Amino acid sequence: MGLELYLDLLSQPCRAVYIFAKKNGIPFELRTVDLRRGQHLSDAFAQVNPLQKVPVLKDGDFILTESVAILLYLARKYKVPDHWYPRDPQACARVDEYLAWQHTTLRRNCLRALWHKVMLPVFLGEPVSPEMLATTLAELDMALQVLEGKFLQDKAFLIGPHISLADLVAITELMHPVGAGCQVFKGRPKLAAWRQRVEAAVGEVLFQEAHEVILKAKDSQPADPSLKQKMLPKVLAMIQ
Amino acid sequence: MGLELYLDLLSQPCRAVYIFAKKNGIPFELRTVDLRRGQHLSDAFAQVNPLQKVPVLKDGDFILTESVAILLYLARKYKVPDHWYPRDPQACARVDEYLAWQHTTLRRNCLRALWHKVMLPVFLGEPVSPEMLATTLAELDMALQVLEGKFLQDKAFLIGPHISLADLVAITELMHPVGAGCQVFKGRPKLAAWRQRVEAAVGEVLFQEAHEVILKAKDSQPADPSLKQKMLPKVLAMIQ
Ligand SMILES: N[C@@H](CCC(=O)N[C@@H](CS)C(=O)NCC(=O)O)C(=O)O
Ligand SMILES: N[C@@H](CCC(=O)N[C@@H](CS)C(=O)NCC(=O)O)C(=O)O
Repeated sequence: MGLELYLDLLSQPCRAVYIFAKKNGIPFELRTVDLRRGQHLSDAFAQVNPLQKVPVLKDGDFILTESVAILLYLARKYKVPDHWYPRDPQACARVDEYLAWQHTTLRRNCLRALWHKVMLPVFLGEPVSPEMLATTLAELDMALQVLEGKFLQDKAFLIGPHISLADLVAITELMHPVGAGCQVFKGRPKLAAWRQRVEAAVGEVLFQEAHEVILKAKDSQPADPSLKQKMLPKVLAMIQ
Repeated sequence: MGLELYLDLLSQPCRAVYIFAKKNGIPFELRTVDLRRGQHLSDAFAQVNPLQKVPVLKDGDFILTESVAILLYLARKYKVPDHWYPRDPQACARVDEYLAWQHTTLRRNCLRALWHKVMLPVFLGEPVSPEMLATTLAELDMALQVLEGKFLQDKAFLIGPHISLADLVAITELMHPVGAGCQVFKGRPKLAAWRQRVEAAVGEVLFQEAHEVILKAKDSQPADPSLKQKMLPKVLAMIQ
């Protein structure tokens, strides 16, 4: 059995893994785990990942979770072009720095923006108070300032002149609030120009394909009550 | 100017960086940033890290934040023994997996346990409700189960027979709730035995030295009102 990737393109780390594998011509079997149908809560998927989260990589007997670990594993195993995860120690450290920073900042903020603005009210039928939503969006705004001011600065890409894993993880993240209808790039010309460069580097067609699902998140059908009951505590834990 | 490390051993990622550098004989100048004196909020430190957080590495002109990135940078630059961050792709991926997983789980839970149990009431004079504390400790308990069940299993160390960066980041994390008086290892014989192995691998003397500050956290002097006012919002943002 070759490489298998368990993904739902609704999820931002899954989009990063998907784009990375496709862009680098890495052959894989796509195993779709439809989160909105609760497929991550099935017994079958618990065999693959007892933590019931996507993405998951399966390479023969070797099962790996955590998008950052999956991206690095693929980068090393398939010897992708150096710019993704540079050999140069300082450039590589800059990628690591971004990948570590985002977990508790942009990741959290973008996830909350999507769930507070769209997924909780539309999909789970749990409206979020305007105050809560405002706090979430204010925190997102602060993280975007750090993304621009500390990481992007005046460079073409987050780490320098070429696209790296940092850009891919960042752009797939930002498309979460974009999918929720947030004007992430408005009034941020540097970030907007960077987005264009990242899209071009990835390729428009692949970028669009990977983001089709999230850009239609607003049209999610409401979950049925039994699924809602199973999912809600896990969702609240995930976005806390 | 050689390598400089800006640290406060009260902070768990700082302890990981400190132990790693000392254990591997990496020469550095220690720049102590006393968090309880608000030294991270000084203008001088903002020149080093505008985000006002420790740890920070300075290697000539090169300034690097984020403990995980700092550990990887040191491991590569100083060619430390392979077991810390193995060349073997699957073992290396296991280290990456743990390092990615902990950011939003054990890190959060251990930080909250310390602040909710000790630092908020003792240092900032802000008692935390028993309900809140109970939730925090229940979440910590769940993360400890994952640490044992998914990561440690029946191995000597988290990744296999030797100590790696994953163990170091995990143990320095767990010493946070230990410093807060939580019985982290009670009723968990596997984790307790693992702790002994990690301490022995690091060396008792270095381990004790790095953890002196956190083990006395309960004796923190109350912050004066003006410092409290400056720190409280940042603390709440950090442990949210
Ligand atoms: N840190 C993990 C996060 C994985 C994660 O939280 N995945 C979400 C989708 S974005 C998930 O599967 N959630 C289902 C749940 O928590 O119930 C990574 O980067 O891979
Ligand atoms: N993800 C960062 C976290 C850095 C961090 O939050 N440091 C804390 C100490 S543990 C700090 O400096 N806090 C000061 C503040 O947030 O005001 C790392 O692993 O280095």
